[in-house]
Amino acid sequence: MLPSFARVSVAMAILHHYPLCPHSRFIRLVCAELGVALDFVEERPWERRESFLALDPAGNTPVFVAADGLIVPGAGTIAEYLDETREPGMERLMPGDPAGRVEVRRLMAWFSEKFFAEVTGYLVHEKVYKRFVPASAGGGPPDMPAIRAARANVRYHLRYLGYLINQRKWLAGDALTYADLAAAAHLSCVDYLGDAPWNEDETARDWYARMKSRPAFRALLADRVPGMAPPDHYANPDF
Amino acid sequence: MLPSFARVSVAMAILHHYPLCPHSRFIRLVCAELGVALDFVEERPWERRESFLALDPAGNTPVFVAADGLIVPGAGTIAEYLDETREPGMERLMPGDPAGRVEVRRLMAWFSEKFFAEVTGYLVHEKVYKRFVPASAGGGPPDMPAIRAARANVRYHLRYLGYLINQRKWLAGDALTYADLAAAAHLSCVDYLGDAPWNEDETARDWYARMKSRPAFRALLADRVPGMAPPDHYANPDF
Repeated sequence: MLPSFARVSVAMAILHHYPLCPHSRFIRLVCAELGVALDFVEERPWERRESFLALDPAGNTPVFVAADGLIVPGAGTIAEYLDETREPGMERLMPGDPAGRVEVRRLMAWFSEKFFAEVTGYLVHEKVYKRFVPASAGGGPPDMPAIRAARANVRYHLRYLGYLINQRKWLAGDALTYADLAAAAHLSCVDYLGDAPWNEDETARDWYARMKSRPAFRALLADRVPGMAPPDHYANPDF
Repeated sequence: MLPSFARVSVAMAILHHYPLCPHSRFIRLVCAELGVALDFVEERPWERRESFLALDPAGNTPVFVAADGLIVPGAGTIAEYLDETREPGMERLMPGDPAGRVEVRRLMAWFSEKFFAEVTGYLVHEKVYKRFVPASAGGGPPDMPAIRAARANVRYHLRYLGYLINQRKWLAGDALTYADLAAAAHLSCVDYLGDAPWNEDETARDWYARMKSRPAFRALLADRVPGMAPPDHYANPDF
């Protein structure tokens, strides 16, 4: 298991990620927005690769390794670390006032925990991971009731997103924050899998079009999982 | 739904909590350690009380309402808020250096997410919530395979805890931090329900005895859920 405060020797910052892991996508967007230069290592978390578990015994993507070798596991912890280690005057994706920070963290948790538990967790597990995992480890055909539950749940999340954006310029207030990037990362996975009902809420749809036209989104939209093509509109910034 | 950055008018800080919710217990311990004076409102989250949902549309315990009326939902967000709004010179439960903060947040996430998903979530749902929820909403007798899974999983978590404490004075390093309080809060729920196998790891057991002998723990150990008595050793600081 991981020795405490372990550091590894690296040439530049590294992100261990899986292309359709929504938590990994969130951190890829964050790093692209902040201009953090990264090497990427693709992990298939279900393989439980020994040298990946040595970085983080929880064995989940993403894991960030800073340029000084500090190991930072988990999307929420990585986001906080990147915010705290910005130089003064550099762009930030968290507001400075306590109330604004509460709202960003509330919405980060909304998407990373609640939306994941009700939508992305089901979809990615059933449609992607189960294709690659051996049957003895729980792989196999997708469980349709789980997918139907995710497809029903995503609708009220889109309406809630639209409700918030109607009162604000961005999801958590006047500026782009981690909240927008977390929400967009999760929705990009849903959209890749063809399960985003964009007719549900026009405001949410327009906000997502704004998000996916940002340069930070380009690398995500270019990713493909072998054998699984996204719908035609997926990589088109104007839908 | 919640208007943005909503505030309510309160006489002092309030914690909306449920006595056997491990996330609520974590924040009760934090507030007791930091000396944050609190009024308490007991919520039964399964009732989805309208005025509770107005505070936080996610509908989960705990929700903290600061003395200035700011609504702060979710244990992780509350912990960060309390750390950020401490006056200079006041006691903190997060280290100041980035590497130390990464380790505390990693372990907070370990217990709030991983341990909850593998242990406390099952136990509290099956043994407590399902007693009170109507059958039409999923209530009923506990699902024994889920409880057996939790009882098996808790063992490796105790060994991991012991492994960490063997290298450090406290869970995340030389000082008591949020990591210890999150871990102890979750374990206190497991222990209340009689499912903590304290013979699994002596170091973990000694650390928990140290934790539950702290004054901050007293109110938790005095709580009782009607019709469910904890084991005899539960409130005894020496086991």
